[in-house]
Amino acid sequence: MSLLPIRADLLPFLEDYLPPREAPTPDVKPFVTLTYAQSLDSRISKGRGQRTVISHFETKTMTHYLRYHHDGILVGAGTALADNPGLNCQWSPEDTIPNAKCSPRPIIIDPRCTWHYEGSKMQRLQLQGSGKPPIVVVKKKPPQSKITDSKVVYFEAPLNSNKHFDWLALVRALKREFGINSIMVEGGAVVINELLARPDVVDSLIVTIGATYLGEQGVGVSPPSGEVTLTYVDWWKGTLDSVMAARLLRRA
Amino acid sequence: MSLLPIRADLLPFLEDYLPPREAPTPDVKPFVTLTYAQSLDSRISKGRGQRTVISHFETKTMTHYLRYHHDGILVGAGTALADNPGLNCQWSPEDTIPNAKCSPRPIIIDPRCTWHYEGSKMQRLQLQGSGKPPIVVVKKKPPQSKITDSKVVYFEAPLNSNKHFDWLALVRALKREFGINSIMVEGGAVVINELLARPDVVDSLIVTIGATYLGEQGVGVSPPSGEVTLTYVDWWKGTLDSVMAARLLRRA
Repeated sequence: MSLLPIRADLLPFLEDYLPPREAPTPDVKPFVTLTYAQSLDSRISKGRGQRTVISHFETKTMTHYLRYHHDGILVGAGTALADNPGLNCQWSPEDTIPNAKCSPRPIIIDPRCTWHYEGSKMQRLQLQGSGKPPIVVVKKKPPQSKITDSKVVYFEAPLNSNKHFDWLALVRALKREFGINSIMVEGGAVVINELLARPDVVDSLIVTIGATYLGEQGVGVSPPSGEVTLTYVDWWKGTLDSVMAARLLRRA
Repeated sequence: MSLLPIRADLLPFLEDYLPPREAPTPDVKPFVTLTYAQSLDSRISKGRGQRTVISHFETKTMTHYLRYHHDGILVGAGTALADNPGLNCQWSPEDTIPNAKCSPRPIIIDPRCTWHYEGSKMQRLQLQGSGKPPIVVVKKKPPQSKITDSKVVYFEAPLNSNKHFDWLALVRALKREFGINSIMVEGGAVVINELLARPDVVDSLIVTIGATYLGEQGVGVSPPSGEVTLTYVDWWKGTLDSVMAARLLRRA
């Protein structure tokens, strides 16, 4: 299904929260945008694995506009398994046609190799020439004999002392190894909740709030580590939703 | 502390969500407005009993403007105990001074008589002539000997078959017994969560969303009974916050 045209007033609103346009400096970490849509009661879906429409079609266009401006698009394996997302970009400036080149490189955080590219929507889009093949971030690469599509890249990311991925080291490694200078993070809840507490990793936060309640049983977003202070806050008013853009305040 | 002046663009925004100005019809239930301020992660405070600043001062003015337009202001006893709120109205139209007459009548939902008027901020304001004495909604009135301030009215409200207050019968009774034609509900979480699931009781919903996260340990708002659909949705953009106004869709 084709996208609605982008609302003209979204462009100046988003401008200050996009990755910088200048040529990236090698020693600076990639620009990271955390973005998701939630209900008023901060649920991103009705329940685990239930894809839920929260916002108006116009914010779908915004999502694709944001994807256009990033080199990579990152989701957790849980989201990749539950939603089978395409993660390509269907928006492009007027008089051009969206293609694989416009699309960000999918990055799947999949420590235990639970997600499979084969048969996914991502693979279908890539074969159609409208999406890129993914980087799968794992703790240990699968044996070569198990890899059936050579376009997928498995990447063993640096672990911290708790044997979890170290977000800052990970985004730096994605830049160093794959030239990814900007990353848009789309979910799911586990990834969002971890990154809300990481102002050292996240540069921009863009949250769409749909005028609905999904109820206590829904999948909630809330940082486990407590209060997060935002700065450079702005709001955009859509037809039915609002979008908040901000930066995370770094603790002194 | 005095209030900021009300933002001019709030008045047309709120207009459609205020109680009707016409003389109320006896057989119609009172107009009920449910209103609260939450963080992005739908928390109304950092923790039980911790009063938390969520929104800009300009929305405090909005709260008092809304109080001006209602006959009654309702909170649960938990909130009355934790916050010791004044619940009076400090806003009035230009060239008038706010007084007790402008203020709504406090209504405290206190089934087990745990809250005490004596020594409360409500009593202090009433003695100063800037607030009204409350109606305390109880399952069973306290003995006359325990009532030390005769201005408080204890009201035994109708119970449903589960021995809980029946919201619809309660608001009707408040109109019938006390002439309260409009009620603003301000919290806390238990009352809000119950009423979000009652489109037969609630006419207007006004939610302020502050650009902050309070974290998983905060007191959350989310209807336990699942999805709630809103209608006549509008958003107002403040300096740092957004306010959503809506009506609850009645199920067919």
